[in-house]
Amino acid sequence: VSARLRIGVAGLGTVGAEVVRLLEAERDVLARRCGRPLEVAAVSARDRTRERGIDISGARWYDSAVDLAAADEVDVVVELIGGADGVALDIADAAITAGKALVTANKALIAHHGTALTEAAEKAGAALCFEAAVAGGIPVLKVLREGLAANRLTRVYGILNGTCNYILTEMERTGRSFDAVLREAQDKGYAEAEPSFDIDGVDAAHKLAILAGLAFGARIDFAGVYTQGVRHVSAVDIGYARDLGFRIKLLGIARLTEHGLEQRVHPCMVRLDTPLAHVDGTFNAVVAEGPAIDRVVLEGRGAGAGPTASAVIADILDVARGVVAPAFAVPAGDLATLPASPMERHVGPYYVRLSVVDRPGVIADISAVFRDENLSIESLIQRGRAPGEVVSVVLTTHDCEEAGMRRALAAIEKLEAVTEPPVMIRIEHL
Amino acid sequence: VSARLRIGVAGLGTVGAEVVRLLEAERDVLARRCGRPLEVAAVSARDRTRERGIDISGARWYDSAVDLAAADEVDVVVELIGGADGVALDIADAAITAGKALVTANKALIAHHGTALTEAAEKAGAALCFEAAVAGGIPVLKVLREGLAANRLTRVYGILNGTCNYILTEMERTGRSFDAVLREAQDKGYAEAEPSFDIDGVDAAHKLAILAGLAFGARIDFAGVYTQGVRHVSAVDIGYARDLGFRIKLLGIARLTEHGLEQRVHPCMVRLDTPLAHVDGTFNAVVAEGPAIDRVVLEGRGAGAGPTASAVIADILDVARGVVAPAFAVPAGDLATLPASPMERHVGPYYVRLSVVDRPGVIADISAVFRDENLSIESLIQRGRAPGEVVSVVLTTHDCEEAGMRRALAAIEKLEAVTEPPVMIRIEHL
Repeated sequence: VSARLRIGVAGLGTVGAEVVRLLEAERDVLARRCGRPLEVAAVSARDRTRERGIDISGARWYDSAVDLAAADEVDVVVELIGGADGVALDIADAAITAGKALVTANKALIAHHGTALTEAAEKAGAALCFEAAVAGGIPVLKVLREGLAANRLTRVYGILNGTCNYILTEMERTGRSFDAVLREAQDKGYAEAEPSFDIDGVDAAHKLAILAGLAFGARIDFAGVYTQGVRHVSAVDIGYARDLGFRIKLLGIARLTEHGLEQRVHPCMVRLDTPLAHVDGTFNAVVAEGPAIDRVVLEGRGAGAGPTASAVIADILDVARGVVAPAFAVPAGDLATLPASPMERHVGPYYVRLSVVDRPGVIADISAVFRDENLSIESLIQRGRAPGEVVSVVLTTHDCEEAGMRRALAAIEKLEAVTEPPVMIRIEHL
Repeated sequence: VSARLRIGVAGLGTVGAEVVRLLEAERDVLARRCGRPLEVAAVSARDRTRERGIDISGARWYDSAVDLAAADEVDVVVELIGGADGVALDIADAAITAGKALVTANKALIAHHGTALTEAAEKAGAALCFEAAVAGGIPVLKVLREGLAANRLTRVYGILNGTCNYILTEMERTGRSFDAVLREAQDKGYAEAEPSFDIDGVDAAHKLAILAGLAFGARIDFAGVYTQGVRHVSAVDIGYARDLGFRIKLLGIARLTEHGLEQRVHPCMVRLDTPLAHVDGTFNAVVAEGPAIDRVVLEGRGAGAGPTASAVIADILDVARGVVAPAFAVPAGDLATLPASPMERHVGPYYVRLSVVDRPGVIADISAVFRDENLSIESLIQRGRAPGEVVSVVLTTHDCEEAGMRRALAAIEKLEAVTEPPVMIRIEHL
């Protein structure tokens, strides 16, 4: 392998431009690291004339990214367009069909089509690499696939969305509301104008499904991810969490249970002594657990041109060295089809906040509901004392099953003294 | 590559036994992950009859580990004996000479001979792998070599010795003395009966030299590591650190400066908001910094049978897949010879604690010494008020050069009112 590797870059947004810039700026050291020269042979983007601060005059221009993916002068196709279907999927199909290596940062594409693409790539003898799709600059896929390959992992979880983590961090730091902090995040460019993919947990769910497939050698099951975002996290609950020794983080968690593969994305209360409690702002982090290693924690920037380009180029270097382990750690034919463990079967402790009229017997009524569902209360605190007025009751439970908790909350909501729908946040043992 | 890979294990202590146990227990999944069966074909240890809880009846026994390393029925030699020279070096030489892959957990061997072994291995076409030599279960070498290969790193640092981190964590948690906590660590098996390699920083220095060589593409320079251990860290300074918003950690730090490669291991004061401040007990952590990624933090167990075996087997799987990047990221011939940046040229803030007689003029005398060396004091606090008695004066500086700081401390020690040698701990901007 001493011939140059010819790279086609489809998509020249901030990430694509940074990939091209770094490949040029670090040309010599990258060639030493992979044993052969890397060359941007072809590019494609929507607007040919836009100024991007990079020199693409040496690369062949394609108006059609799909044509680029099939072009003879391209050895590795870098897909940086995005979207689960449409042109991104067409590019992937074209590259793999042509037997070319495909490098992508597209988490939606892999979450929806990763298993099928892996099967096709294996049949075609093509490499499929997507390090940049999960946790940006943190090489978490390589770590799970290769660095921890000796392990039978039991749980993988993390802070997978920097927008949500920034919002929760700022809400805790400043005491401001979700809406106010979201607007600030949009002004700073940490949240999109249309933020629902991030704040409703979809982006984190894409990444979790990919992580789970790799960690457990299973076919990706994005539809099996229970997903709840951060829109309804309030400053009040962040404050009570702190009083109880917790912080609230949006986590993605995957683990094997007796019911199958549990995959869930939702706000969690985590204790201050767990590493993820201190991962703030736009940082991401992933934790892998298994009997041999106990736990390994990886933290870094989950988005942005530099971190994403770092992951894309690491994949290109693996392709250049001819050194690509199976995308999901085992051959596609060996991937297991794991049943989705339903969220109703989830077991863990819970935080519940109730708005109730402060009068005799209310606590007894609430306690009776929990008793009837066999849910064990760990602590119950009435916040404030104002006979006849509405006060907060905050309680935490020991391990409960989600199904019983949901029934209890539905029953409590119907109590006459309860003035608002109960707020429930899961507590996570990490 | 479908033929079985025949492994020879030299050294059957707790790590060697765990490697053999895991290879057997996870035989099927490991074969799927690397595409071929793994087989323990040969073993060697001091005592053939010792009960280790593993079945080695299928492996050929060698009384001489060097004979094992040269044996025809072995494809990859796993060296788990330890020591910078002697039999470990003989095994390495024998394996490489025979063109076999060498996997080792031996940090002393690599710190002293890593560059020469890499050159020999490259000439022989043999793989050389030592993931287990640094930070145990954390795949930090793979991350630096491959996952972050697109980056021009500027600084690499970490908590590289679990024994020291346990001692410092317990001293802070309990307020007890170094000696008391060391004895407890020895009772718990976290420190050796002869603990000097750990507590004097030598073990961390071995690991730092390896990390620096890999991160900066440089020939290893273990002799260039400034090394100071934790023996002299007192509960008093840990308490004052906390009052100032710091924790004390033994760090290994490598970075490129205008004077060359700075490598140093010493106790550092780190701010509470830096990730390493929360890495407690026997955990290790490594941080890599560069312009593209900002920073990536890796945390996990740095020692113990499970984590070390995890790293050893990950290396074996890379060998089995035929997938081994150059040991120090670039071919040995391309490794730079970097001058060692002398510790006297180190620049940073400092913490200084003085024991002085509480009387008029003392602070003025101390301040004058700092002024004469052009050292800028950030804060100076006299702890307590007891005219005529000995009190503590604690001060912190802005960035200073180490040479000037050392001259100032020597001058202050000679002041008549100063009753004990000054205590100096470097503050680290992380």
